[in-house]
Amino acid sequence: MSDFEITKDDLNRPGLPANESLVEGAGKVKLDEPQSWGRGIINDLRRTVGTHWFQEMTNFNQKTVAVSCLIFISVIPPTLAFGASYGKMSGQRVGAIETILATSWVGVAYSLIGGMPMCVIGSTGPALALSTAVKNIAEGAGMDYLPFNGWVSIWLLGYCFTAAFFDLTRYVKLATRFTDEIFALLIVAIFVMDAVGDPFSPSGILRYFQEDHRSHTTTENEENPDYEYLTVALLSTILGFGTTWLIFFFRGFKFSPFFCNDGVRTSISDFSVTMSVLTWTLVKELLFADVPTEGLAVPDQFEPSFKCCTEACDTYWPDECMDQPEAYGTRSWFVPLFDVPGWAPFAAAGPAVMAFLLCYLDNGITWHLINHKHHRLTHGEAYNYDLMLNGCFNCVNGLMGLPWLVATTVPCIIHLNSLADKDAQGNFLSVQETRLTLFFSHALLGLTMLFLGLLKLLPLPVLYGVFLFMGLSSLPGIQFWNRFLLFFQQPSRYPESVFVKYMEKNRIHKYTVIQICFFCGVFVVMNIKAISIAFPFMTFLCIPSRLFFLPKFFSGWELALLDGEEDQINEWIQAKADSIRGFKMSFVDIEDDSDDDDKSAAYTPNIIAGDMQPMPVVNKAEISDDLSV
Amino acid sequence: MSDFEITKDDLNRPGLPANESLVEGAGKVKLDEPQSWGRGIINDLRRTVGTHWFQEMTNFNQKTVAVSCLIFISVIPPTLAFGASYGKMSGQRVGAIETILATSWVGVAYSLIGGMPMCVIGSTGPALALSTAVKNIAEGAGMDYLPFNGWVSIWLLGYCFTAAFFDLTRYVKLATRFTDEIFALLIVAIFVMDAVGDPFSPSGILRYFQEDHRSHTTTENEENPDYEYLTVALLSTILGFGTTWLIFFFRGFKFSPFFCNDGVRTSISDFSVTMSVLTWTLVKELLFADVPTEGLAVPDQFEPSFKCCTEACDTYWPDECMDQPEAYGTRSWFVPLFDVPGWAPFAAAGPAVMAFLLCYLDNGITWHLINHKHHRLTHGEAYNYDLMLNGCFNCVNGLMGLPWLVATTVPCIIHLNSLADKDAQGNFLSVQETRLTLFFSHALLGLTMLFLGLLKLLPLPVLYGVFLFMGLSSLPGIQFWNRFLLFFQQPSRYPESVFVKYMEKNRIHKYTVIQICFFCGVFVVMNIKAISIAFPFMTFLCIPSRLFFLPKFFSGWELALLDGEEDQINEWIQAKADSIRGFKMSFVDIEDDSDDDDKSAAYTPNIIAGDMQPMPVVNKAEISDDLSV
Repeated sequence: MSDFEITKDDLNRPGLPANESLVEGAGKVKLDEPQSWGRGIINDLRRTVGTHWFQEMTNFNQKTVAVSCLIFISVIPPTLAFGASYGKMSGQRVGAIETILATSWVGVAYSLIGGMPMCVIGSTGPALALSTAVKNIAEGAGMDYLPFNGWVSIWLLGYCFTAAFFDLTRYVKLATRFTDEIFALLIVAIFVMDAVGDPFSPSGILRYFQEDHRSHTTTENEENPDYEYLTVALLSTILGFGTTWLIFFFRGFKFSPFFCNDGVRTSISDFSVTMSVLTWTLVKELLFADVPTEGLAVPDQFEPSFKCCTEACDTYWPDECMDQPEAYGTRSWFVPLFDVPGWAPFAAAGPAVMAFLLCYLDNGITWHLINHKHHRLTHGEAYNYDLMLNGCFNCVNGLMGLPWLVATTVPCIIHLNSLADKDAQGNFLSVQETRLTLFFSHALLGLTMLFLGLLKLLPLPVLYGVFLFMGLSSLPGIQFWNRFLLFFQQPSRYPESVFVKYMEKNRIHKYTVIQICFFCGVFVVMNIKAISIAFPFMTFLCIPSRLFFLPKFFSGWELALLDGEEDQINEWIQAKADSIRGFKMSFVDIEDDSDDDDKSAAYTPNIIAGDMQPMPVVNKAEISDDLSV
Repeated sequence: MSDFEITKDDLNRPGLPANESLVEGAGKVKLDEPQSWGRGIINDLRRTVGTHWFQEMTNFNQKTVAVSCLIFISVIPPTLAFGASYGKMSGQRVGAIETILATSWVGVAYSLIGGMPMCVIGSTGPALALSTAVKNIAEGAGMDYLPFNGWVSIWLLGYCFTAAFFDLTRYVKLATRFTDEIFALLIVAIFVMDAVGDPFSPSGILRYFQEDHRSHTTTENEENPDYEYLTVALLSTILGFGTTWLIFFFRGFKFSPFFCNDGVRTSISDFSVTMSVLTWTLVKELLFADVPTEGLAVPDQFEPSFKCCTEACDTYWPDECMDQPEAYGTRSWFVPLFDVPGWAPFAAAGPAVMAFLLCYLDNGITWHLINHKHHRLTHGEAYNYDLMLNGCFNCVNGLMGLPWLVATTVPCIIHLNSLADKDAQGNFLSVQETRLTLFFSHALLGLTMLFLGLLKLLPLPVLYGVFLFMGLSSLPGIQFWNRFLLFFQQPSRYPESVFVKYMEKNRIHKYTVIQICFFCGVFVVMNIKAISIAFPFMTFLCIPSRLFFLPKFFSGWELALLDGEEDQINEWIQAKADSIRGFKMSFVDIEDDSDDDDKSAAYTPNIIAGDMQPMPVVNKAEISDDLSV
């Protein structure tokens, strides 16, 4: 392509300028200048909602429908699963209905006034762990959980607002690909494990092969003489992996010659998840109606989960008043904030610090992942504004006894990917940035509260299949994963990428090994229940490690190639090319100009003969390949 | 690549010589010159066994082991299945043991002295149909089946020898790709249907979902209170499709960067079938030992299947002498040839004609498929010699009460493909032509008669998975199938091939439609039991249809492109290129030589400016792509 190509030999010539000296300060991470008080929020608001709101609310097309369905399908199961967990944790004070309601209203509200509508909010494991801690504190002090949680939420809003006001979110932007991808791979691991079979929890398709799995031991199934756990397990396996396979099969048509035009192919690819879920649900319902595979744990009707024994509503019907035929009523939607001792509102400031850190980090890292430059988002970031908004939403939730919500990584990635226009190699070309998908999917989620019975038709294994697809389809975009795969590949056949071209193989592996260590650390913390609340901190630890620890082991240029932004990488490659060119030029000066045909002669003039273009344009495909394959 | 490229515009220029006139006699099929009496056999013998025997017996390497395992695995199930069918048909006169013995000895003998050791012999449906007809004739005349069958076999040898002596096999070589591919696709269809679920017979994975399937209604299973047909069906589905998936997964490593070198990757690809079968057999035996999936119907010990009630051995124990506690003995291995009326040896000449046609056609078309030029076999053909040999083998089989065997298409294709060295696009580069794989696999088959119990461990659904793989992996090599897929593709995105480049789309489709009609005709005949004996005739009908019927609808050059040999296609493309070049040259003469930069100007001189190479070499990849993808 270019007259001037850098060969392997060129790179290894003795006498070339050292790689370290090419770009000064390569691999350094810079902290943004602080914005003056409050400007962060206002600038964010202007840049995003103020500029693009109308466009984002009106770009309705087929993709909008497809992605809304996809997000709807993908938020239901975690919402219900977390609902069940919250119910168990809080003695039904917060349950499935509360989780659906919270996810739905915050989703709709965020889609209307949020700053970064590519982000999907929802329940997460750390948020649940934190709520559990708050509940334990409250119970330890003899208080009811909900009012204390309400006070914590009020403080949380205060902290979030303060952080946004003083533009503290710029510290999250210190996170680089190093941290982002550890976090992303963790979340993907959770998704795949949840879908296939989690060694730490009874979730996943393969878990059905345990005879004592919770789904086999329900009263209903134990009383059914025809219930055969193995049949259920085998059918669940087929439904789950079948769903994943069918999604990939449909997506495969996108770049094939099949069907009459691009429009049809794109539709099939866009609706792949919906069609696969429908197909396998029908297979289950029509062909295997007699096999009771696990369904979703859907509540029966829309009302607060907590049913009271008495008017005071401090005991739970039926568990705490077995002889009472009917509940007195349900708890009020509004938390009785003043049913706590006088010192409690102040004591809540402590746990609220933890809650704030959770919001700050969990949100921050997800936002950072989504806004990575190679995703080519153009509508701008709104870290400060969204942090404040998240504080508001969570405060309202706290006051109503609903769970806290933050940005959820994998749904965000799926949302982004399915709205993206990509080339056949998977590089982002553009993204249809819209508020409508988030709006429709979460409005639909709210509507299901009116048709709760319909949700029961969805077999859980089919949804596991969707999760497996989500995890697997995110993998190829994670450079950390691709570098991990290099361990199993033949060095001479490593896929092309900037770091493979310029760096020694061992240096790449060393970097990957360090990343794996951090990954394992966070993974262990995440999976040990007692300390899982520290999970966001552990992730956060990666940021200073990258800033102060990694430079001890790697030169700046290596960090730039492995961990830098696209423009940093380009800058270095350009400097490298210039240095080789300059070196060759100096050589030509002292060599004679004979027509030497011998290829092994070090620097034949004809390499230089081409007109002196300013710079060999770095092959674009190669760079983006490195960044996003 | 070439200075001289033919563009779409070039093809459509008015005034070009007509495509019809480019090559005289294009698309004509030529009959070989007859060889003088007996020379055909001798030439064949010299060309093949006489020249390459030592090399073919000594080229032992890893591939030999891998392919031997593969062929061994793939011949077991049909051998046993046909054994069961023969037993049912003949009242146990010919059973599983006879089929194994015949396949094994003929396989070993053929591998040692056969002319085309790429071909795998075995039982086929038409041979079974013909044996049934012979049995019906014998019974109608009050004779025992085996002696009459013996006389037919003797006549068969006579016919085969005569045909080989007079070089009649050259007529089979009139078959072109048109006929070959109809036949190949039929056989692939049988394999896929047998594996997934045959609407005409109770074979295939999905058939297990029928509650009254033969495997669910065995005495053993009906007496087992834990037997759950749905569990067996679901597990069989997972085993079957799992096996197919795992084979393709292993094969995928061949051209990947994974593993340390090409040797390891090739091994994994070579042993993909063996490893997958072992893996899934272990999964079944270790994890699901309690689920009685269908196994192979293996006889208990090595002795003739027919057990006698009395010394005369004309009744079958235990069916025909229920009160007798033990059999008197078994039938002798040698058929009592003279236990028939005096006219029977002469009457046998009639059915033997049918048997001969079967051998002639079934063998011939398979040989023709295997020896197609794009497979790049170099050790020559031996149609006459092998036909004589096949007559001898079948004569011996007839005298011993063993079934007739002929060349079996899909195992042959699998054998060829797995011994081939291909590029990443699937084009043949070379084939390791050897006798060892056939020898080892069939010797191993013979050895299993000593360890019959081991075979019972193999779950039938796993073997169905292997069949499915065999069918699916043969599909992309069949041009008929690729042309069929064009119906579902966007014309502007048709995969590149010679006919797509030069022919009108509608003409291609017309040709495909005609081929589909023939396919359906043969398919119907094959699947209606009463007339299935005519299956080889129907296939043979395709040859005269191609010779006399197709030229009425298509020009010679079209037939050459769609149905010609590689050199015919090359000749036509060269003539076409020459004609365009000549046409352009004549234009240059009358045009001025100005430096016209306007691209739309019809014939810019710079196209011609290059030195006049003799001919633009036709892009090789393109041609082989057309021929074998």
